[in-house]
Amino acid sequence: MDVKAYMQDLGRRARAASHAVAKADTDTKNRALHAMAAAIRRRHAEILAANAADLAQARAAGLEPALVDRLALSSGSVETMAEGLEQVAALPDPVGAVSELVERPTGIKVGRMRVPLGVIGIVYESRPNVTADAAALCVKSGNACILRGGSEAIRANLAIAECVHEGLRAAGLPADAVLVVNTPDRAAVGELLRMHEYVDIIVPRGGKSLVERVIAESRIPMIKHLDGVCHVYIDERADADKAVRIADNAKTQRYGTCNTMETLLVHEAIAPRVLPALARIYAEKGVELRCDEAAARLIRAALDGAAPQIRPATEQDWHTEWLAPVLGVRIVTSLDEAMAHIAKYGSQHTDAIVTEDEARARRFLREVDSSSVMVNASTRFADGFEYGLGAEIGISTDKLHARGPVGLEGLTSQKYVVLGNGQVRA
Amino acid sequence: MDVKAYMQDLGRRARAASHAVAKADTDTKNRALHAMAAAIRRRHAEILAANAADLAQARAAGLEPALVDRLALSSGSVETMAEGLEQVAALPDPVGAVSELVERPTGIKVGRMRVPLGVIGIVYESRPNVTADAAALCVKSGNACILRGGSEAIRANLAIAECVHEGLRAAGLPADAVLVVNTPDRAAVGELLRMHEYVDIIVPRGGKSLVERVIAESRIPMIKHLDGVCHVYIDERADADKAVRIADNAKTQRYGTCNTMETLLVHEAIAPRVLPALARIYAEKGVELRCDEAAARLIRAALDGAAPQIRPATEQDWHTEWLAPVLGVRIVTSLDEAMAHIAKYGSQHTDAIVTEDEARARRFLREVDSSSVMVNASTRFADGFEYGLGAEIGISTDKLHARGPVGLEGLTSQKYVVLGNGQVRA
Repeated sequence: MDVKAYMQDLGRRARAASHAVAKADTDTKNRALHAMAAAIRRRHAEILAANAADLAQARAAGLEPALVDRLALSSGSVETMAEGLEQVAALPDPVGAVSELVERPTGIKVGRMRVPLGVIGIVYESRPNVTADAAALCVKSGNACILRGGSEAIRANLAIAECVHEGLRAAGLPADAVLVVNTPDRAAVGELLRMHEYVDIIVPRGGKSLVERVIAESRIPMIKHLDGVCHVYIDERADADKAVRIADNAKTQRYGTCNTMETLLVHEAIAPRVLPALARIYAEKGVELRCDEAAARLIRAALDGAAPQIRPATEQDWHTEWLAPVLGVRIVTSLDEAMAHIAKYGSQHTDAIVTEDEARARRFLREVDSSSVMVNASTRFADGFEYGLGAEIGISTDKLHARGPVGLEGLTSQKYVVLGNGQVRA
Repeated sequence: MDVKAYMQDLGRRARAASHAVAKADTDTKNRALHAMAAAIRRRHAEILAANAADLAQARAAGLEPALVDRLALSSGSVETMAEGLEQVAALPDPVGAVSELVERPTGIKVGRMRVPLGVIGIVYESRPNVTADAAALCVKSGNACILRGGSEAIRANLAIAECVHEGLRAAGLPADAVLVVNTPDRAAVGELLRMHEYVDIIVPRGGKSLVERVIAESRIPMIKHLDGVCHVYIDERADADKAVRIADNAKTQRYGTCNTMETLLVHEAIAPRVLPALARIYAEKGVELRCDEAAARLIRAALDGAAPQIRPATEQDWHTEWLAPVLGVRIVTSLDEAMAHIAKYGSQHTDAIVTEDEARARRFLREVDSSSVMVNASTRFADGFEYGLGAEIGISTDKLHARGPVGLEGLTSQKYVVLGNGQVRA
């Protein structure tokens, strides 16, 4: 197979189809999404059979059990996929919305119209449900897409793609609006990342090595984040109960997510009132603590020497996204020291302050340069659903275009529209 | 001189200074801009002397007279620079504005805050006034910048930079917030385009070869446009008077600007009523026409053979940004044919339709994928001042982040802010 020629063909077809999706009205796009959901329900046995074949091959190839687990679909998860399509259909359509037109002294009226980006390339791993989710978000936002899932999920991805195509056709939209790469050859990813004439934006969804590869190889703009080294800073003026509740939840509600706290910063004045309680909670839940000297001393003293899960933090620890029951703990002497730590070691993903002092909260909100900055809330809220976007294609820690959780609006752009009545420039 | 080490040092200093500018309040930034303007007025003799030395060297080196002209400053243009700084001071400050906070079912309030991008690298040619303009826009939007003007203007640029630094210091801001590259070595540009750890966005301002170089070498996101192949389409349902007025102005008001019309598309049904009049105007103004067969025939017949400035259009002509008194003219049989021509040959900069038919206007606005799309107005309006942005750093034909004229808002981004009261995720 000539992978380059194959990918170029996909690119051309996606670009051609993108024009039809871009101008489709909301009803047409929603009809397509509902028809996709119906096809997924009707053909769920096919999807599960394809998934079973993927799973058998993955096990035979000795894939790690955790990865095999992530690959597995069930009747329940197939139904969830169908429901996800219907939920995206229910979201407001961003395309075509025009901001308030402002009349200029020349008499022209100037506004901005939301428009699709064009063709979106998505590179992802394992979970086949991303195929349906990504298709839904791209079609609803008026974009075509080229989806390249993991080779271990290729049969399920193609079975889902058939349902997506059925839905597109039912609404009179071109099936090429959602193209699934049908080759396990990894060179296909390299081609996708270089087809800037056909692909307007790349969304890498997966682990760090996938995202690093995409950053290294792509010259197409991206919606991405590499790390989620998130912080909670417990300020001197924090409410101690809120602080404990938030620092517990931000670390332990789920360990493997990008918005999980990886380092806890505590003001020295409040540390004796919050750190012992937190250390007990973390010990119970099996969270290992990597502490600076002051934090270690305080926790050991408070827990009467019985604090086996404490190790001294290394410089590298502060940079680390553990994605595991491990937490860095550091005592700071001021808000400035906390913000300096976040600026130096953070990944501009999500950082929170716990404080009852409004002026300090405002400074933290303004000065911490992260995609989500929070006051008195758990970092675990950094999520498209929690923010009310309805769904998310990913989280961006870059500064351009879209920052934080990216939903339908982040898959669009705004062009200027000018309405005149024969005006010419003087 | 070790250019790499020199540029790395500038990068580090700009990054360090960017934090102070980012958190500066509006008054402080405005004070700096007013102090810059005062310094420019006070030191105008120094600036003109530096410019005279640049001019002497440029003439001695045999620089083209047109380029020497663009390089020249006068008392008037120095005063205009100072006024430009004051105008930017008068513009609203986008930084820190928070969109309406929306309360979610969990009780957290979610909104977005406008924040600076960080460090902006600007590569430009000839005109030294860009040094003051770009400094003003970057500082007002809370960004630091590294400015690399043309080597032929280096003395004037450095003299202006001294005034800028004086203004920054007067307001208590670090002088490193605006750094002017002090070496004519072209390798400095290459370094700037690769310093992604220090530079968040690159703005190339200049001719096509400059922009092409930046695209080829940079891995940093850009605000840019390469070509301005702008179209006016005169629809079958156009008002003929408006059509003639707009097609005249869009081509002849200025020839060398990126929003000048380069190709005129005319519906066959209205062509006999507008093309002869336009051909006479263009002939008077010395505009050469590159016509398709139908347009050439119509114009020749109407002008009774006396139409010397007509040549048959080649395929390449439709792709060409003339920046000169040359215009492509083509007769089309439908709105769809006009939009297909624009999609194929246009540069997604600015395109206009002249029509009294609302449905057709709406289709054109929605379906033409350009940074500015206009109805019944001259393409020459595509400009930050005309749109009410107050000033512009450039025009973007890319789809991500900012499209069309880019002012202060385009030099900022939005981060999510979340205000809670102790909420944790369930």
